[in-house]
Amino acid sequence: MAKEAKTLDDLFHDTLKDIYYAEKKILATLPKMAKAAQSEELRAAFEKHEAETEEQIGRLEQVFAAIDKKPQGKTCDAIVGITEEGAEIMKEYKGSPALDAGLLAAAQAVEHYEISRYGTLKAWAEEMGMTEAAKLLDTTLQEEKKTDKDLTVLAESSVNQHAEAA
Amino acid sequence: MAKEAKTLDDLFHDTLKDIYYAEKKILATLPKMAKAAQSEELRAAFEKHEAETEEQIGRLEQVFAAIDKKPQGKTCDAIVGITEEGAEIMKEYKGSPALDAGLLAAAQAVEHYEISRYGTLKAWAEEMGMTEAAKLLDTTLQEEKKTDKDLTVLAESSVNQHAEAA
Repeated sequence: MAKEAKTLDDLFHDTLKDIYYAEKKILATLPKMAKAAQSEELRAAFEKHEAETEEQIGRLEQVFAAIDKKPQGKTCDAIVGITEEGAEIMKEYKGSPALDAGLLAAAQAVEHYEISRYGTLKAWAEEMGMTEAAKLLDTTLQEEKKTDKDLTVLAESSVNQHAEAA
Repeated sequence: MAKEAKTLDDLFHDTLKDIYYAEKKILATLPKMAKAAQSEELRAAFEKHEAETEEQIGRLEQVFAAIDKKPQGKTCDAIVGITEEGAEIMKEYKGSPALDAGLLAAAQAVEHYEISRYGTLKAWAEEMGMTEAAKLLDTTLQEEKKTDKDLTVLAESSVNQHAEAA
């Protein structure tokens, strides 16, 4: 126990840096996914989420301010891995009727990572009595859940049929 | 377009290999997380999920059989990244009262990855009329959702308080 014991505050701050890095990575990845998408609806969904992601980054910056820290990212191995899988799909399924189904699945893996992180951060903020931060985190959490649901609807209403029919 | 066009069948098979690799990685990681956990309840939760994971691997092998393929994994960058983050928590928060909160959060990130993958695979199986595979995938999907909920209850009922109180 040479180092000073880390606390829930530290864990909250570390995880905030993790998701801040992740959101920036997602923001850089979404235009590539939108460009790759074959269907108009999927492209539109990615573009909409890109705009949302910008707002979510802004909200994270407000949470950093609430804990008196500068916004700072920390390499998030999880999102690196998840987006690499997406990039692989783009390459391997280029020109395939199944491309959109694969892109959509990759986007849902991203959404679920975010849902888990925002759910955790919100719970920790509540535990520490950080009402304002909890509210900001919950706003984004609800957006991510809605994006995931919208993607499911899009998959089941058109993208999967197209992949199968082709 | 030199290569033969990939289809939804290929995407299903590729994603099955991805989650098969992921489940095996999770199976190897859970005993380490159980060993690291400070609270009896969290350790028990990880041990229970370890047993479930073995069954889930068995179910995946049945899905491979249903599509006439040998069970085979393919490196899943996402789960590699997610479990690396968990390993980092174990190292950085060793001896800290916030360790269990961090471990639990890492486990929920794993669960959410699985939820997204099984949800996708089930939808594709349904789209392709693979009733038996869809049923197997749904059984695991429901288990993963329940594990995630149980972890949330554990976090909010004891683990987070402990991390904060210390």
